Amino acid sequence: MPEYKAPLRDIRFAMQELLDFETHYQNLPGGEDASPDMVEAILEEAGKFAAQELSPLNQTGDKGCTLTDDGVIAPEGFKEAYANYVEGGWAGLAQDPEYGGQGLPESLASIVAEINGTANWSWGMYPGLSHGAMVTLETHATDELRNLYLPPLVEGRWTGTMCLTEPHAGSDLGLLRTKAEPNDDGSYSITGTKIFISAGEHDMAENILHIVLARLPDAPAGNKGISLFLVPRYNVNDDGSLAGANSVKAGSIEHKMGIHGNATCVMNFDGARGFLLGQPNRGLACMFTFMNNARLFIAQQGICHAELSYQGALAYAKERLQMRSQRGAVAPEKSADPIIVHPDVRRMLLTQKAYAEGGRAFSYLCAQLVDLAQKSQDDAERKRAEDRLALLIPIAKGFITEAGVEASSLGVQVFGGHGYIAEWGMEQILRDSRIAPIYEGTNGIQALDLLGRKVMGSQGQLLEDFVGEVNAFIDANRDNPEAGELVVELERHVKRWSELTGQVAAGIQKDPATLGSASFDYLMYSGYTVLAYIWAMSAVKAQQALANGSSETGFYQAKLATARFYFRRILPRNEGLAVSLVDDADTLLSLEEEAFAF
Amino acid sequence: MPEYKAPLRDIRFAMQELLDFETHYQNLPGGEDASPDMVEAILEEAGKFAAQELSPLNQTGDKGCTLTDDGVIAPEGFKEAYANYVEGGWAGLAQDPEYGGQGLPESLASIVAEINGTANWSWGMYPGLSHGAMVTLETHATDELRNLYLPPLVEGRWTGTMCLTEPHAGSDLGLLRTKAEPNDDGSYSITGTKIFISAGEHDMAENILHIVLARLPDAPAGNKGISLFLVPRYNVNDDGSLAGANSVKAGSIEHKMGIHGNATCVMNFDGARGFLLGQPNRGLACMFTFMNNARLFIAQQGICHAELSYQGALAYAKERLQMRSQRGAVAPEKSADPIIVHPDVRRMLLTQKAYAEGGRAFSYLCAQLVDLAQKSQDDAERKRAEDRLALLIPIAKGFITEAGVEASSLGVQVFGGHGYIAEWGMEQILRDSRIAPIYEGTNGIQALDLLGRKVMGSQGQLLEDFVGEVNAFIDANRDNPEAGELVVELERHVKRWSELTGQVAAGIQKDPATLGSASFDYLMYSGYTVLAYIWAMSAVKAQQALANGSSETGFYQAKLATARFYFRRILPRNEGLAVSLVDDADTLLSLEEEAFAF
Repeated sequence: MPEYKAPLRDIRFAMQELLDFETHYQNLPGGEDASPDMVEAILEEAGKFAAQELSPLNQTGDKGCTLTDDGVIAPEGFKEAYANYVEGGWAGLAQDPEYGGQGLPESLASIVAEINGTANWSWGMYPGLSHGAMVTLETHATDELRNLYLPPLVEGRWTGTMCLTEPHAGSDLGLLRTKAEPNDDGSYSITGTKIFISAGEHDMAENILHIVLARLPDAPAGNKGISLFLVPRYNVNDDGSLAGANSVKAGSIEHKMGIHGNATCVMNFDGARGFLLGQPNRGLACMFTFMNNARLFIAQQGICHAELSYQGALAYAKERLQMRSQRGAVAPEKSADPIIVHPDVRRMLLTQKAYAEGGRAFSYLCAQLVDLAQKSQDDAERKRAEDRLALLIPIAKGFITEAGVEASSLGVQVFGGHGYIAEWGMEQILRDSRIAPIYEGTNGIQALDLLGRKVMGSQGQLLEDFVGEVNAFIDANRDNPEAGELVVELERHVKRWSELTGQVAAGIQKDPATLGSASFDYLMYSGYTVLAYIWAMSAVKAQQALANGSSETGFYQAKLATARFYFRRILPRNEGLAVSLVDDADTLLSLEEEAFAF
Repeated sequence: MPEYKAPLRDIRFAMQELLDFETHYQNLPGGEDASPDMVEAILEEAGKFAAQELSPLNQTGDKGCTLTDDGVIAPEGFKEAYANYVEGGWAGLAQDPEYGGQGLPESLASIVAEINGTANWSWGMYPGLSHGAMVTLETHATDELRNLYLPPLVEGRWTGTMCLTEPHAGSDLGLLRTKAEPNDDGSYSITGTKIFISAGEHDMAENILHIVLARLPDAPAGNKGISLFLVPRYNVNDDGSLAGANSVKAGSIEHKMGIHGNATCVMNFDGARGFLLGQPNRGLACMFTFMNNARLFIAQQGICHAELSYQGALAYAKERLQMRSQRGAVAPEKSADPIIVHPDVRRMLLTQKAYAEGGRAFSYLCAQLVDLAQKSQDDAERKRAEDRLALLIPIAKGFITEAGVEASSLGVQVFGGHGYIAEWGMEQILRDSRIAPIYEGTNGIQALDLLGRKVMGSQGQLLEDFVGEVNAFIDANRDNPEAGELVVELERHVKRWSELTGQVAAGIQKDPATLGSASFDYLMYSGYTVLAYIWAMSAVKAQQALANGSSETGFYQAKLATARFYFRRILPRNEGLAVSLVDDADTLLSLEEEAFAF
């Protein structure tokens, strides 16, 4: 397993040079505390914590969790690392000081989560799920519930989960059956079975707060009859002390392809005592309030695995000696050249690098928008941020997680046979990465959300607003001496993005199934194009830094080289997608169901 | 884990309708016994054996092999299934009757191996490795060695391995260090460590014959100093009975991402008694004599996993109910429609189907050429077959194994969260599939072999000969009423294939690193194009069958629909590859090694 080193130089580039987080935090209500010095200190400490506490547990955590009579036990060392995390005050970094949080911007917590998640994704999911529960309680719980449940959650003494999926209700939550029956005291009795509950049970915290979707008696069928509840693992007395166990426990832990260190549980609710969050029958709407954060967290998983796999593959490619460079021996004193001299090995490494760094900047751009959507006091600015997020989040979640799997698979390939052997850790990264295109809304669902709800649902307005931003960048930089060529190429892809959208819209008018026929390839086209924008911006910044006489020539030359690589070797995939995504839905739908196999 | 059903209808389509195996076998020396009735009986029995004996052991075999003091133990049931395989006379299907084989064509054995390998790839590797050892001994062993060692190997009582890789010598076999020192009796003492030895040790057979690459004393350095040896696990008396153990044993078994049922061993040779095969220092050349067979076997792995994953995903997509069809409810009496109504699910299923069936026909085309290269008495015909194989094998191995991983990953995706859970078996298929782009020459090596040794090495002649065959098909079928549109599109891709080759050749003239810069994307472009040829041929055959009034309208309509899908949704990827593969090598090579990370 590669030893993780936080890529702080690249994180600073994305934050400071590309996206000007300093100004962003200065203008953000509550962002004053995130001074450059504070941000720097937090990044440094997060990098140390991740490298020292979490990275060593990544491979051992792959042995998995254990279900005992007393509940689920997390892998060895997870509990102790979590205790240190809580002691370090990390749990409530972005939470409201009223409940014990540090009140720093959400985006900063998200970057810390990326650092932790790269070192050890399975471990990072425990606080990740807590964070979802915190945001839900902050937004939808009554004052009484907030005062009782939020402080220990924000402190980290308790953790949280999100209980949505049921055996028959995955992408289609409208089918869920878990019941919530009112008790006389205003609480509810929750009964049903939830599956795929990440961090569902473990021994790392004193209590676990389950956020649960369930149906009230006589609720309407489908999506409009779902309500949201808080169900603690242990009941809580009015003074905050723990009473006895609630009627909810893990029935089993799933044996999965990867992320073995995180307990994915079947949770059985057997008349468990719970409390309504938000309005009755408005549970799905409540969930959607933090859907953007949750999906951004999963988008980060793609970056985490691309980065970790890249770190491993790069180190190996510098050491492993096989064959000679096609331009002539580079290390004639050795038995062979290090494989990093081979163009095809570099193709793989640069793909990983382009995804990790480009995906990182893309996710930070989204994280800034999350800050604004949460905190801005300017209604128009908040609305703009929400609209932009509505468009970008399904692209980030869908595209970056696909890229993460591709990058992780390339990391295996760079290692050759050793990549397939568990000892080296590269195959674990691939196994861990493969869940990201599935959970938090499959990428097929992200694609429908993007093309259907967001682009078509806004009559193309959300897209055109973003295209306007990109075009302003293009107009300002098409003559850049180093990056101008890329900027002009970006313009072609962006212009075609609009045109393709128009063609698909016309297709949907004629046949509604055009939506599902086009959606996935449209998502990927959109992703490659947004990443092209990110890389063109990065190239411009690098050119400017070099022109201004920066001494970090290697770093900026690498940015330019990676941008060129992305445009010349990866972005051309859009040429194929531009053809396939406007194809007629009949190509997919004409075949009779019975004729798929004989 | 999907229950496997041999796709006999599609196998017959590829063999009988597309590639006319009947005539092929009639004309093939030794092929007379492969009458249509015999072929049909073998396919039927192979399908039954695979479904009844091998499929039930696929998921349980994932628990892996065990290293004991007495050597490696294969997963439960493997030994018994292998005994039934031997008893059924399957082991020597294509081997020389002089040594107890049935003398049937190699291609037929290869199709049986595909059927077994789809049901249980890990199990199928044991006879697969034996087959490599058989071919090696038939071709390179002295009469004395052949008479002693081949009969029990052909019978199946003994199995074989291929021992090539060493810790420091993977793609670059020239670096290997295992020593072979001559003994007074004409045998050799072999000393060294081999890694990644598939089927290296197990309890399924009485003896194991290792085919080992090693260096004689004073052998030249590099590739030209490697010799080939036979090293039995147990020494063999002159009467064929077993003497004591030889000094070779498994030091450990690797913990891998997948194919757990096959023992991947570190093999320690400690002065083990061995026998020279072929000429001294000609070991690599000897290996190359059956390289085409071995690489075709791995290409089949892509088909096997695409097929098995497709069978699983298709069954699930017909049963799983989530959401409604975009064209209006299809099953209004149910809570939701089966997900096979959704275009995006069909995109995934049809990709799997296009790869499985197209890859199958592609591999059978290669298998016919292997027959001719082995058996034809006509020198010119044999040379043509060898030349065509030289071009097609790296494409088949490289492209189909990439397609197999993609298809297996899509199978996971169709299952949503369930796809990530071991119980359903879909993630195992993906884990098992991931080795195929690595072993038997990584796909990076296949790409260099294709573009460098084969295409450039023949000054483009191998490619142009094949393009000539494809163009004859195009000219004959461009007016086909159903398939003509596809044939015309194929023409564009084939024409551009030649043009791109010329551009790359010019690039290599200027900069030899252009080879490695272009090679992988060139391999993929070639693969998509060959598969387009296969699908265009399939569409023509389907149109003709329908025009001739076949009653199997569903089957042939599915062929046409899958062909159209392939051309409209998959083949456009060539548009991007055509751009990226002619890019300058400097895009990959300009970045200083130190500048990859900061």
